[in-house]
Amino acid sequence: MAITIAVDAMGGDNAPLEIIKGTIISLELHDDLNTVLVGDTSAIENTFKELDEEINPDRISLVNAEQVVGMDESPKKALKEKPDASITVAMKLIKEGKADALVSAGNTGAVILAAAQNLPIIHGIERTGLAAIYPVAKFYRKSKGFALMLDVGATIHCTSRQLVHFAFMGSYYVKKVLDIPDPHVALLNIGEEETKGGEVLTKAYKYLKEAEDINFIGNIEGKDIPKGIADVVVTEGFVGNVVLKMLEGVSDVAKDMGKYAFKQKLSWKIGLAFLRSGMKRLKVKTDYSEYGGAPILGFEKLVIKAHGRSNAKAISNAINVAKRSAEEDVCTHIADSITKFNATHQMDLMEI
Amino acid sequence: MAITIAVDAMGGDNAPLEIIKGTIISLELHDDLNTVLVGDTSAIENTFKELDEEINPDRISLVNAEQVVGMDESPKKALKEKPDASITVAMKLIKEGKADALVSAGNTGAVILAAAQNLPIIHGIERTGLAAIYPVAKFYRKSKGFALMLDVGATIHCTSRQLVHFAFMGSYYVKKVLDIPDPHVALLNIGEEETKGGEVLTKAYKYLKEAEDINFIGNIEGKDIPKGIADVVVTEGFVGNVVLKMLEGVSDVAKDMGKYAFKQKLSWKIGLAFLRSGMKRLKVKTDYSEYGGAPILGFEKLVIKAHGRSNAKAISNAINVAKRSAEEDVCTHIADSITKFNATHQMDLMEI
Repeated sequence: MAITIAVDAMGGDNAPLEIIKGTIISLELHDDLNTVLVGDTSAIENTFKELDEEINPDRISLVNAEQVVGMDESPKKALKEKPDASITVAMKLIKEGKADALVSAGNTGAVILAAAQNLPIIHGIERTGLAAIYPVAKFYRKSKGFALMLDVGATIHCTSRQLVHFAFMGSYYVKKVLDIPDPHVALLNIGEEETKGGEVLTKAYKYLKEAEDINFIGNIEGKDIPKGIADVVVTEGFVGNVVLKMLEGVSDVAKDMGKYAFKQKLSWKIGLAFLRSGMKRLKVKTDYSEYGGAPILGFEKLVIKAHGRSNAKAISNAINVAKRSAEEDVCTHIADSITKFNATHQMDLMEI
Repeated sequence: MAITIAVDAMGGDNAPLEIIKGTIISLELHDDLNTVLVGDTSAIENTFKELDEEINPDRISLVNAEQVVGMDESPKKALKEKPDASITVAMKLIKEGKADALVSAGNTGAVILAAAQNLPIIHGIERTGLAAIYPVAKFYRKSKGFALMLDVGATIHCTSRQLVHFAFMGSYYVKKVLDIPDPHVALLNIGEEETKGGEVLTKAYKYLKEAEDINFIGNIEGKDIPKGIADVVVTEGFVGNVVLKMLEGVSDVAKDMGKYAFKQKLSWKIGLAFLRSGMKRLKVKTDYSEYGGAPILGFEKLVIKAHGRSNAKAISNAINVAKRSAEEDVCTHIADSITKFNATHQMDLMEI
């Protein structure tokens, strides 16, 4: 059965051009994929004309949305003032079952808020999580070369029950969509001992240790994040957000340092030239467009938040990942595991 | 007037040899410095003999302590079971005014706990902070090339009042000891807007904006940490600890990647050889031994926690920094500013 993905054609720095190009790539890759492009219909049609591409009505539907949330707008204010924003219209489509999952490269806060305003949360889950994929080294442990961290900004502070739910969500997503059969799941903490980090974390540790279906490896520390010691790193949104943005910052600094060194001294310029193939490899590895975007987990439908600066390739990867999630029915798997866990642990965890 | 620094001769991976070598270096550098070496007196005397150095009784006193807290011991348990541990004996010396400040490369948790058990906290301060110095890039803003972050592990979760106090402590320390005349002080948050990050952070923002004597530049995000946008980064101990250890982890990965690349391909080996001078420069910049250790702020006396793996140079730098702190009377400056701030803001901040 074909999967239908709703695509926010207007969200992101390079919308609608790169969004539409990415959609076309994915449609060429997968015969069993259909898409709904949501946004200013005439702008979308013009873009297809510019690209000299046909709109095949069997595989591409257009749904008009008159408004767009800008990348720097306040999500709350913008969604209130723009009821016909493309992200809201797209959310309603997946809510109503007219599409199976959604991809947007728009304003992150607005995507999360529009999801919260329109989509039902999986029964038994209190808070949803934004999960980011980031590159990791492979010297320290055989891994896929990337890992998932959640939450990175949807839920600033968490209870232990919410952290446990994040562990289930992340574990299933990684297993079903990113092909890591038995993912190592860890809590991010300030020490490896079970008693570290305060009450919320020690309780979460206790329950994760008991949880079936999760390969919980215990606490990891900050130093273990880039080493890929865990495939799924569970933390509250505040910490996850700071960590993720710091990884981006370190990557910026490394790039700028390379540029500086290149100009500074002839010997450095020569050295960097010899290293070019290695740096290219590293660049591919640290390129967000390879990873298919960040899933927002905990709703009954899957939403993929692609990077704001996504190009066609990044959008196509995000659509492919959204399709895979829908095929694998990730949300149902998460719902089942949470129901099972809550049934046995409901009362204990109510405390925190 | 000469300054006396108490040195925990037994703390650290390379104790007592490197500790004693570092002490000798500092004594040679500063005529107005005296030291008290605390630990197993006969082991200390033997080390001096091995080094073929005299113990000048005018400048070096020895105080015996029969026990040592190991680097991997549980701090609470170890301090309880070892009342004559070198770190406890050293703390008592500065408490009694027999030395002006203390340097230890021992077990971090034990150093903090021994301080809490023995030293009075500055009046008006609720929680003490462990402040770490880390290297930052200089492309983005003219800075010293390093910045201070606190707390990095002494106080896991903080109230807004505690965060404001950390800002005062860090600002004074950086100003008086690290020679940054008007340090940029920032709150670590998940967005730049004043309203981000929850109630504790928004309140702290409000009070820091009003605080005199502090050059508060607002919120910074994770990406700004390695870019040196702030000289003093204020955050709760959990986040600071994760961030600091992640920087260490990234640095480990970079080093190991270099080693791997060196072995992998001839062209990479040549490239790295050409870059050697640049990498050496980078290594110096990221070498913790350059930065003189992490101050524990908020007690009436200053304690400097040197890195566990400190060599003689790192210990000497830590002693120099401790001397400078005592000369500049950093603790009194902090106490005065906190008293002034609390007098006007006591009630408002009681809420959080």
